[in-house]
Amino acid sequence: MVLEKTAYLNAGTDGPLPRTASTAMQRATTYDLKFGRGDERYFNYITDLWEKLRETLAGVLGVGTKETALTRSTTDGINAVLRGLQLSPSDEVLTSDEEHPGLLAPLAALQKQRGVTVRQVPLEQIASAVSSKTSLVACSHVSWMTGRRAPLEDIAELSVPLLVDGAQALGAIEVDVAALGCEFYAGPGHKWLCGPDSTGVLFVRSDWTDRLALAWPHYGSLAEPKRPLDLEPKADSARFDSGFLPAVLAAGLLGSVGLLCSHGWSNIFERGTKLAHQARSMLSDSVRVEPADTTLVSWHSRDAALSVKALASEGIVVRDIPASSLVRASVGAWTSEVELEQLAEAVARFESG
Amino acid sequence: MVLEKTAYLNAGTDGPLPRTASTAMQRATTYDLKFGRGDERYFNYITDLWEKLRETLAGVLGVGTKETALTRSTTDGINAVLRGLQLSPSDEVLTSDEEHPGLLAPLAALQKQRGVTVRQVPLEQIASAVSSKTSLVACSHVSWMTGRRAPLEDIAELSVPLLVDGAQALGAIEVDVAALGCEFYAGPGHKWLCGPDSTGVLFVRSDWTDRLALAWPHYGSLAEPKRPLDLEPKADSARFDSGFLPAVLAAGLLGSVGLLCSHGWSNIFERGTKLAHQARSMLSDSVRVEPADTTLVSWHSRDAALSVKALASEGIVVRDIPASSLVRASVGAWTSEVELEQLAEAVARFESG
Repeated sequence: MVLEKTAYLNAGTDGPLPRTASTAMQRATTYDLKFGRGDERYFNYITDLWEKLRETLAGVLGVGTKETALTRSTTDGINAVLRGLQLSPSDEVLTSDEEHPGLLAPLAALQKQRGVTVRQVPLEQIASAVSSKTSLVACSHVSWMTGRRAPLEDIAELSVPLLVDGAQALGAIEVDVAALGCEFYAGPGHKWLCGPDSTGVLFVRSDWTDRLALAWPHYGSLAEPKRPLDLEPKADSARFDSGFLPAVLAAGLLGSVGLLCSHGWSNIFERGTKLAHQARSMLSDSVRVEPADTTLVSWHSRDAALSVKALASEGIVVRDIPASSLVRASVGAWTSEVELEQLAEAVARFESG
Repeated sequence: MVLEKTAYLNAGTDGPLPRTASTAMQRATTYDLKFGRGDERYFNYITDLWEKLRETLAGVLGVGTKETALTRSTTDGINAVLRGLQLSPSDEVLTSDEEHPGLLAPLAALQKQRGVTVRQVPLEQIASAVSSKTSLVACSHVSWMTGRRAPLEDIAELSVPLLVDGAQALGAIEVDVAALGCEFYAGPGHKWLCGPDSTGVLFVRSDWTDRLALAWPHYGSLAEPKRPLDLEPKADSARFDSGFLPAVLAAGLLGSVGLLCSHGWSNIFERGTKLAHQARSMLSDSVRVEPADTTLVSWHSRDAALSVKALASEGIVVRDIPASSLVRASVGAWTSEVELEQLAEAVARFESG
């Protein structure tokens, strides 16, 4: 419905929630009201939802269900890995200069609290910057600033473990985690997968399950909650689930991913990137556009923050990238060509005004 | 609605969701669908919900809003404190032998990963067991097993910091955190406050805000997300918020707490504990009942797990306490005397059968 009223070009912040997801969420709420949440029936209902969702998200990532944890955000997954690795002052984490606070804040905490070295290099140099001191590379699949891809294949070829922040990739471009060969991949449910806020997924490659400590353990992390002091974790990546994922969120994300799935992922990726390419080409008549081949379209503005306001007043929802001259539009399979024309015209008007 | 169909006596696991909460949740879902989630309007809407909820929960705890963090579970708050204290092998955490895995699992992780000593003593001895090695006392306000209260006043008089697990107290009995004088208090939204799953609250006394490290930092923890590597936290306890609390959960919890509030907290506490007292008295004709003055009623059964099943078949929802002979009923202000009679009769039948 939001798509009928505005040119919604901000899935990179928060995707458009489809009606199927909203309906599933309403149904889940009604279940709680009708049947309650404290009996065996509820327990079976919620664990069934979790397992369906785990299977669905594992499918989207191209990995096994046993390697898939249900989180509440990309950052939840990032913290689970960064904290779980129990790094010390002799460790260096290599990252890029185009990272989001959702990765940089957890890295800063490691630096401050555990004396870990965090080194930032330009995105395109990250593979060549790996040194013998590097214990982990942590970077985005797609830069939230420019929409550029990190050279993940080059990094994955090296022997250093790789944690990928998939916030602007998962559901936007093809993500085949197993083929990529990374150790960890964290992504959101609420951006390009169009699910409810506070959903996400974390891939932990099976050979790393036992090497990551439980950094935020809870009842659901345990194989044997009757003996919690043993801290015996669940056998697979379910031990890294962020906590009790409520039915309303699990059902909503299942609804939205199910809808996207039914259109065919390759169609979605193809349409999104094709439209983004068109947008770049249309915008380049009036502004300098960052080159990229993903669904994020960023251009330099004479006043990024003001441009966002001006476009908003015309019903076009985009965002600016703080501390830069960039304005960013998120172009999805749900975007229309008419909206892109509106965008290009409004941007041209603003920049010449 | 669940209350019409069953004798719902398991708020200690998951409270009955009132219709006002469910309606608020449905409305929040419709907002997302209609207006989207990526613009300024949404940002204002969600931050307004958070601040209303923070104020409401601070009121329930009897503390200031600046000392109140929005979490997604009691365990989230416990982990934030236990990890934030950055304890080392020279530290001992004192706890009781009636604690829930939601506290014990985080403690076990400290023990295993950081070499911290965790010492368990009987609940009633916890104040006298504090030694010069004790860096923190961490225990329940009300035991999830027996419904007994911990001697929190005695502990709070000592100079050692106190972390309270309020899972079976918050919304069930009077909780006046400021009067109690503890440093940290963690509680759930989904049990006795009858809110949605995956909600909770953490109190951090203002003199401890800067002494707790950010153990799970995210975008929302930062005062200045433009410079994330500075890790400059928000000025108050909002820095300990667990992440982006979705509108559907915030609105639901506001709805349920608002309803309880409108009945008057003292009425709710009085009615709940009075009915629980009646239940203990009625049950004591047929079983040995644990003495307590809270809303949890526990008794010893010849076969606790089987008893839960037998009662469930009669529409009575209770639970057993694993690795014990205890069955537990959660008696709330919403419970009726007729339900307690049904419970007492069904228990008597089962235990004699």
